[in-house]
Amino acid sequence: MAKTTSELDRALSGDTRALGRLLTTVEDGAPKVRELIRELLPRTGQARVIGLTGAPGVGKSTLTAALVGAFRTAGRRVAVLAVDPTSPFTGGALLGDRIRMQEHATDEAVFIRSMATRGHLGGLAAATPQAIRVLDAAGFELVIIETVGVGQAEVAIASLADSVAVLLAPGLGDAVQAAKAGILEVADLFIVNKADKPDAQQVVRDLRGMLALGASQEGWKPPIVTTTATTGDGLAEVVTRLDAHWDWLAESGELKRRRLARAREEITALAFAALRARVTKAGVDELAAQVADGTLDPFQAAEDILDG
Amino acid sequence: MAKTTSELDRALSGDTRALGRLLTTVEDGAPKVRELIRELLPRTGQARVIGLTGAPGVGKSTLTAALVGAFRTAGRRVAVLAVDPTSPFTGGALLGDRIRMQEHATDEAVFIRSMATRGHLGGLAAATPQAIRVLDAAGFELVIIETVGVGQAEVAIASLADSVAVLLAPGLGDAVQAAKAGILEVADLFIVNKADKPDAQQVVRDLRGMLALGASQEGWKPPIVTTTATTGDGLAEVVTRLDAHWDWLAESGELKRRRLARAREEITALAFAALRARVTKAGVDELAAQVADGTLDPFQAAEDILDG
Repeated sequence: MAKTTSELDRALSGDTRALGRLLTTVEDGAPKVRELIRELLPRTGQARVIGLTGAPGVGKSTLTAALVGAFRTAGRRVAVLAVDPTSPFTGGALLGDRIRMQEHATDEAVFIRSMATRGHLGGLAAATPQAIRVLDAAGFELVIIETVGVGQAEVAIASLADSVAVLLAPGLGDAVQAAKAGILEVADLFIVNKADKPDAQQVVRDLRGMLALGASQEGWKPPIVTTTATTGDGLAEVVTRLDAHWDWLAESGELKRRRLARAREEITALAFAALRARVTKAGVDELAAQVADGTLDPFQAAEDILDG
Repeated sequence: MAKTTSELDRALSGDTRALGRLLTTVEDGAPKVRELIRELLPRTGQARVIGLTGAPGVGKSTLTAALVGAFRTAGRRVAVLAVDPTSPFTGGALLGDRIRMQEHATDEAVFIRSMATRGHLGGLAAATPQAIRVLDAAGFELVIIETVGVGQAEVAIASLADSVAVLLAPGLGDAVQAAKAGILEVADLFIVNKADKPDAQQVVRDLRGMLALGASQEGWKPPIVTTTATTGDGLAEVVTRLDAHWDWLAESGELKRRRLARAREEITALAFAALRARVTKAGVDELAAQVADGTLDPFQAAEDILDG
């Protein structure tokens, strides 16, 4: 694995093209991902992971770019993973987002990447944690995971983050839709974007009403920040609120709890993915024929597969 | 296992209360289900399994009762499993259906049972095949699985059957809804019930239109039969059509193909259920703590679980 190791060294010492190739390895789910993650593991655990989600059209990419700018102003290294949970074969869909972020293209403390999971065993839910580990090991203090907010899938991806910011906008992805998608429960921060539009305050009021209705989280009450991503208005407050949440996570012990829960989910997802691979490989048809004939009991057949 | 064996003998020799107890064992998913199925297995493979599904209100229970009557007229032993895929804890919900079938209550060649899966590992999808094996071994020539047609779940349950009959009625569970639920593809026979209502012929026309639009199945074109379950009109034709489908299944080799596919799905479901049990048992929290610390790679943790 000498080649991988030197590629790894290059990636970790700031070679963004080498870093990009490592993430392609993660996306492809090549067998060497496992080797790679094992090598990276001791260098991980430092990055703060921020999930940013919202319905299409709320200005997610523009806000992500503005947020990157705000973090850069504070001197921090930032990586963005744009993840589309709706399609395992996308990659192209978010290319536009990458182009819109070109203002940061020449800044080597910023790394932007859209993420697909062509062949990754376990899909995005299993691939995203590995991509986060790569960026973490490469020394990015902040990793922003941007996902399209369309339902349960993005709730799952957002839950990979230490802090989850939910983006709303007047007319699009409003509070009622967010409630339906089960997203109110996972939000640590609400950002109501397009604050220059007349209905923005109504979105804030709706949101307050819904948050008051729901059982409020113990300890941390998700604040609501209004922004205009195109002008940068409100972005400094977003950074302040996210920093406050980070401090709270550390002090309350919630960070440890969340990361433990994440590891549990990740392990389970990988175990199921590995089982799926065994089912494919294990000559299930032969076992099925015996079960259909009545010569093998299905429980035994299941165990045969499980034990590889 | 002497006690189980004698209970089994009683159940197989026509003791319906003993048979009921065996099905309770299957529902509960007790460890002895496996032992039971292994003993039954050599006696299975004879029963014809008919899936009957449709939206609430189409007259499913009345039609099932009428169909049981039509099969009894032809001198056949019939068992009915009423399965509610929407709730793992139901059982009670379908009690009304059982009561409505009391006309057959004194006929010992008819066995009617609603089915829940309180603790069954793998849920209904794993429990239903075991219940079918029990009824098959007990000598019922026909096993009717009646499910509430509400979406993907019932499509899955219906796919456990050799022949799938989809029940529609004017205003309820119409052709468009059936198409949305993906049910047109799995139907081997359409029954338009409440044929005495004025809109029944419209349902038939809609259905014909939709079937013409869809890619028609090679070899078997699902016929449409109109019935009035309350008077028994059309039931003889339902029996004729189902018999014709059974003959076609045998002649075309489709029966063998379907039962093989079913065994494959069953084994896979049981393997995943067994893995879920291992995940629960295997001290995942300890592994997760090591992964969160960066001292164990998640792929290794997943393998540790998979290997029990």
